[in-house]
Amino acid sequence: MASNTFGKLFAVTTFGESHGPAIGCVIDGCPPGLAIAAEDFAHDLARRATGKTRHTSARHEADEVEILSGVYEGLTTGTPIALLIRNTDARSKDYAKIAEQFRPGHADYTYWHKYGIRDPRGGGRSSARETTMRVAAGVIAKKWLAEKCDVRVQGWLSQLGEITPGGHDLTAVEDNPFFWPHAAQVPELEAYMDALRKSGDSVGARVGVVADGLPPGWGEPIYGKLDGELASALMSINAVKGVEIGDGFASVAQKGSEHRDHIAARGFESNHAGGVLGGISSGQPLRCSVAFKPTSSLRLPVDSLDIHGDPVEVVTTGRHDPCVGIRAIPICEAMVALVLIDQALRHRAQCGDVGDVAPRVPGRKP
Amino acid sequence: MASNTFGKLFAVTTFGESHGPAIGCVIDGCPPGLAIAAEDFAHDLARRATGKTRHTSARHEADEVEILSGVYEGLTTGTPIALLIRNTDARSKDYAKIAEQFRPGHADYTYWHKYGIRDPRGGGRSSARETTMRVAAGVIAKKWLAEKCDVRVQGWLSQLGEITPGGHDLTAVEDNPFFWPHAAQVPELEAYMDALRKSGDSVGARVGVVADGLPPGWGEPIYGKLDGELASALMSINAVKGVEIGDGFASVAQKGSEHRDHIAARGFESNHAGGVLGGISSGQPLRCSVAFKPTSSLRLPVDSLDIHGDPVEVVTTGRHDPCVGIRAIPICEAMVALVLIDQALRHRAQCGDVGDVAPRVPGRKP
Amino acid sequence: MASNTFGKLFAVTTFGESHGPAIGCVIDGCPPGLAIAAEDFAHDLARRATGKTRHTSARHEADEVEILSGVYEGLTTGTPIALLIRNTDARSKDYAKIAEQFRPGHADYTYWHKYGIRDPRGGGRSSARETTMRVAAGVIAKKWLAEKCDVRVQGWLSQLGEITPGGHDLTAVEDNPFFWPHAAQVPELEAYMDALRKSGDSVGARVGVVADGLPPGWGEPIYGKLDGELASALMSINAVKGVEIGDGFASVAQKGSEHRDHIAARGFESNHAGGVLGGISSGQPLRCSVAFKPTSSLRLPVDSLDIHGDPVEVVTTGRHDPCVGIRAIPICEAMVALVLIDQALRHRAQCGDVGDVAPRVPGRKP
Amino acid sequence: MASNTFGKLFAVTTFGESHGPAIGCVIDGCPPGLAIAAEDFAHDLARRATGKTRHTSARHEADEVEILSGVYEGLTTGTPIALLIRNTDARSKDYAKIAEQFRPGHADYTYWHKYGIRDPRGGGRSSARETTMRVAAGVIAKKWLAEKCDVRVQGWLSQLGEITPGGHDLTAVEDNPFFWPHAAQVPELEAYMDALRKSGDSVGARVGVVADGLPPGWGEPIYGKLDGELASALMSINAVKGVEIGDGFASVAQKGSEHRDHIAARGFESNHAGGVLGGISSGQPLRCSVAFKPTSSLRLPVDSLDIHGDPVEVVTTGRHDPCVGIRAIPICEAMVALVLIDQALRHRAQCGDVGDVAPRVPGRKP
Repeated sequence: MASNTFGKLFAVTTFGESHGPAIGCVIDGCPPGLAIAAEDFAHDLARRATGKTRHTSARHEADEVEILSGVYEGLTTGTPIALLIRNTDARSKDYAKIAEQFRPGHADYTYWHKYGIRDPRGGGRSSARETTMRVAAGVIAKKWLAEKCDVRVQGWLSQLGEITPGGHDLTAVEDNPFFWPHAAQVPELEAYMDALRKSGDSVGARVGVVADGLPPGWGEPIYGKLDGELASALMSINAVKGVEIGDGFASVAQKGSEHRDHIAARGFESNHAGGVLGGISSGQPLRCSVAFKPTSSLRLPVDSLDIHGDPVEVVTTGRHDPCVGIRAIPICEAMVALVLIDQALRHRAQCGDVGDVAPRVPGRKP
Repeated sequence: MASNTFGKLFAVTTFGESHGPAIGCVIDGCPPGLAIAAEDFAHDLARRATGKTRHTSARHEADEVEILSGVYEGLTTGTPIALLIRNTDARSKDYAKIAEQFRPGHADYTYWHKYGIRDPRGGGRSSARETTMRVAAGVIAKKWLAEKCDVRVQGWLSQLGEITPGGHDLTAVEDNPFFWPHAAQVPELEAYMDALRKSGDSVGARVGVVADGLPPGWGEPIYGKLDGELASALMSINAVKGVEIGDGFASVAQKGSEHRDHIAARGFESNHAGGVLGGISSGQPLRCSVAFKPTSSLRLPVDSLDIHGDPVEVVTTGRHDPCVGIRAIPICEAMVALVLIDQALRHRAQCGDVGDVAPRVPGRKP
Repeated sequence: MASNTFGKLFAVTTFGESHGPAIGCVIDGCPPGLAIAAEDFAHDLARRATGKTRHTSARHEADEVEILSGVYEGLTTGTPIALLIRNTDARSKDYAKIAEQFRPGHADYTYWHKYGIRDPRGGGRSSARETTMRVAAGVIAKKWLAEKCDVRVQGWLSQLGEITPGGHDLTAVEDNPFFWPHAAQVPELEAYMDALRKSGDSVGARVGVVADGLPPGWGEPIYGKLDGELASALMSINAVKGVEIGDGFASVAQKGSEHRDHIAARGFESNHAGGVLGGISSGQPLRCSVAFKPTSSLRLPVDSLDIHGDPVEVVTTGRHDPCVGIRAIPICEAMVALVLIDQALRHRAQCGDVGDVAPRVPGRKP
Repeated sequence: MASNTFGKLFAVTTFGESHGPAIGCVIDGCPPGLAIAAEDFAHDLARRATGKTRHTSARHEADEVEILSGVYEGLTTGTPIALLIRNTDARSKDYAKIAEQFRPGHADYTYWHKYGIRDPRGGGRSSARETTMRVAAGVIAKKWLAEKCDVRVQGWLSQLGEITPGGHDLTAVEDNPFFWPHAAQVPELEAYMDALRKSGDSVGARVGVVADGLPPGWGEPIYGKLDGELASALMSINAVKGVEIGDGFASVAQKGSEHRDHIAARGFESNHAGGVLGGISSGQPLRCSVAFKPTSSLRLPVDSLDIHGDPVEVVTTGRHDPCVGIRAIPICEAMVALVLIDQALRHRAQCGDVGDVAPRVPGRKP
């Protein structure tokens, strides 16, 4: 129920503000016996981290994870796993000015109106700093999915502003700072980003995610559909404005004879559906696409109001990402993994013995 | 928690199969004192109903709503409101053949693998027949939103296959069977649909929804964001493959200086965000766009398998919609309304006295 | 979340008022493949029904269950199971008077203040009529527990006013209208009840419930403990004022050396704990005890107020039970069964592979 | 849904093991604008703390609360409040022996069978150390209830073994280490406890809790009843074996004419109901009673098994409380407060405008 908790059975509760003392999460419902160590988090947190290249924000956080509970002698015990990361690069500058201004495109205005109070330091709770803990929780989800179900989740940047990939080689993704699936374009992307940064502006992006290895059967109709929960999970990421499953919006102009995936003896012959039918996984790869808006924190001035209703000109001088979509790849992967582990456990709960019951009626699933 | 329940405080649980004896829902958490009568449901159910024009399925259901509980002397009492609709046009044909075949593009295959058993009659639970109850529940949500908060939700067809509207006149929407916002194109749409029906094929569609009158402050970060819940709500509708908020996927190619909505003394100067910032309503109109795939039930034969793994050729001879997106307009509206009433109640729970607390800190919201 | 829903994975939503057109429930999350027929409900509903002996209310309801969904060819499909019972003996007397009076000991006063409106006919939603659907849902839970887990739930009357059983023979319970575990006392009970009915008064009762066959491991610490959920489930039954697990309040005066159950090679040597340790089943029989207050509907007049604040004398002339605890036995059993099936599914979700993981660490559970 | 989370709208998630690095909690859904400082927790944590008198365990924890999030400039912001307490007196003794033994009366056996692994250090997650965070969260709940609703919660020891209070003076409770409502008996209690400690045994206790100032209307029928949630909340406390509301088990032997509380012009004339009717608060004081079993950690040896199934003799040499019920008073208060704030917010959500609607029907609540 709580709005800072994600998942029903593998439930992740995050907390913390961008410039508060710490961020963290509590993961409740993790199956026991999974090996987890502090080092496990380093890889994905580094993929999400700022300060690694000139193309991301200059904020540099160590992102050292402390495991506070739920792990004994290296194994999960089934009790809540609390993870803590201290904020170390939260600059102690004066927030007096920003505290009274609404930055256009940010949540300042809406938090103010909702709560009547807001933590203005670096965006407070509305900062993408929160997504660090999604990635951390996602590490555990990914590990369980890989070890128990042989399911792998991979994301990549599928569009940067108006640039689209000239090829689709997922093995290239981790070898460049843009998570781009076509190595030959990397110099072009670097030049594009350099010009963008110089201009003081930002740009949107599109992220693709695929999950391989899913068995058929994950997902709960009607309001707990696999695609419905993916949509919510991905839309909840900062700056996301759209989510597609399978062919997504391209389906609008398709004919039914074109979209429906034929089933041959060896399996499905195409994957327009993106691996989901009726809200349940079909056993095909799960395919999602996510639209990120350009960040609104710019050096370029913009008209706005302050909390007294007076006009102000807002200029963001702090550190920011010219394209937030790039670092969002591990976040998208994490959210997909969190949906999948939760659905896997829910499926086991209701249908864990489907194999057993099946033979009781002739003609049913063997 | 339950997967056939939508909403946390205004919780709608639906039940029923396409060709079972009845469909229905239970609405728990409705505020007391709202006037509700059986007649209130007629208008929106008729908008969703088949059998009204030649462009939709020929199935004709009376869709008469019986209020079983929760209403006393015409007013809601705060106890669960149960609504029941008997299925009257469920044809008693032989389902033996379809029961053993997986129709491509349908949920047959996935239900079978998940549950080891499925009700094959008209798609059973996976049929869009279920959405009737969403519309019914949405009627109550819309009424409360209108009466208590002056919030209105309206949907329209914003694309039919490759045809896009030549104008955007929402007053025209209810005057044509396509919910089309440009009356002059209606003959073109009729011809298109006639040709489509003749071909035996189907086509996708795009639906737009706007909600006007929202106050700023509805929506709960982080995992209960207004846009996140809209995404889930809309993606859970049968045949939906994509959801956008505000500019959606167009944001990918936008610059930050273009996307962020300036705030002038008289309010926001544009609405690229679509009425949501940081997961909380901004007070601007809420704008969503939804992609519907073409229906997979076609007269055109398609390769598939039966439950024994043997190849079959599937032909759908039953009644179906050549474009399911058209009748989806009231369904989309209903889902948006269900999200909004739930968020409105949640906002009242946590922040119902924000006006009271605010003066306690200088410089805070007056 | 919804307050008329019980259970997290096996989620039962009930609806309906005492004198409305119908009562019903929706059971979401039932495992597929369980054989369920309308006749299955008859036995337990008859045990709960009024009008069978002179010791219970004269209201006679047929309690015929219609299965509206979720069952196909006699088997559950995994989709929501909706059950409907039409009210047939709701007398059409004038409620004008009772509608304006608060009956002491009833929920009239509190519903009025909470909702500002209430359905006064037979107590509306606050009537024990609602418990009919708990019993119906419990039938499905009991069946699954018996077939899949060999778990049986049995209740009995363990105290009637000041009379306590002279013996504890559970095989006698179903052979007398008092669910009494000592047949020799039945004439005494009949005389007691006759005198009570003649006096126009009512009396409280205590109900015992035992569940046999539980494996160790069901129950989720900390806030989803097995005993915590049993307490909530049983306390939610109309007229319940107390719940005990194991030795319950007798534990207060016990010494630790007396209360803790020794474990010998053949298992536990006593069961003061009542089958739960740390909120998790120990594999011993689960033992609960429940206190029912005397019904407040009496022929004897009592001072009260009407809704205008004026003093009135309330006399209940309608049908009522002199001891509501008697008919509560199947209700208590149903609530225990609902807790157990839900915990069983939750345990399977998180720990369904504990057997598999265990060998990975030396010295861990084999 | 998550089992380590308590509450639906004011949701408290706790984490941590007895001898792990830290314990903590995340409070989600707290209304904004409430003043909270680290010092606020000291008083109640000290009431719960061990090591203050010779009558409790010798473990001495500083219990210093660090507020990690959700509070800005001393006020709650509406975002999650994370509280952290480092464990400082977790002794680094060898747990090898205890890790292989099941201590009778403890959760060792059940955790082992559920999870296949357990943290044996000081009972791990099943230790009452966890209740520290309930008390901390309860401090915030109590503060809000007092400031916003003028509701106060107070607990006391109402029985110690076989000793019952000779008077009921709640003003005396905080002036003695036993929370005893009759000062004259304190020497008797001290002598009793000294003898008990000397004997190496332990004893049970009964705790009373009253909440004053509740308005009528809090509580959600049917499965979210105020008394049902209190029962669950209190039963979830370590060592609790029974819960009563109002007259509780005494109701069993009462007559209806005796139990039902008359309503006079000036209000209710008695409070057998304990402040709840139909699951909703009546405006009378809320009265609960809780049974605590004697702790099972004793110097006296007891037969048990080890994890290999071999018989062992268990002797607890560590620190423990001879009567855990004494320190449970602030824990019981906290759990009652957590139930109340959650119900208060839920009531505001659904019925926040009942005053407005009421006049629409003649004869309804003014």
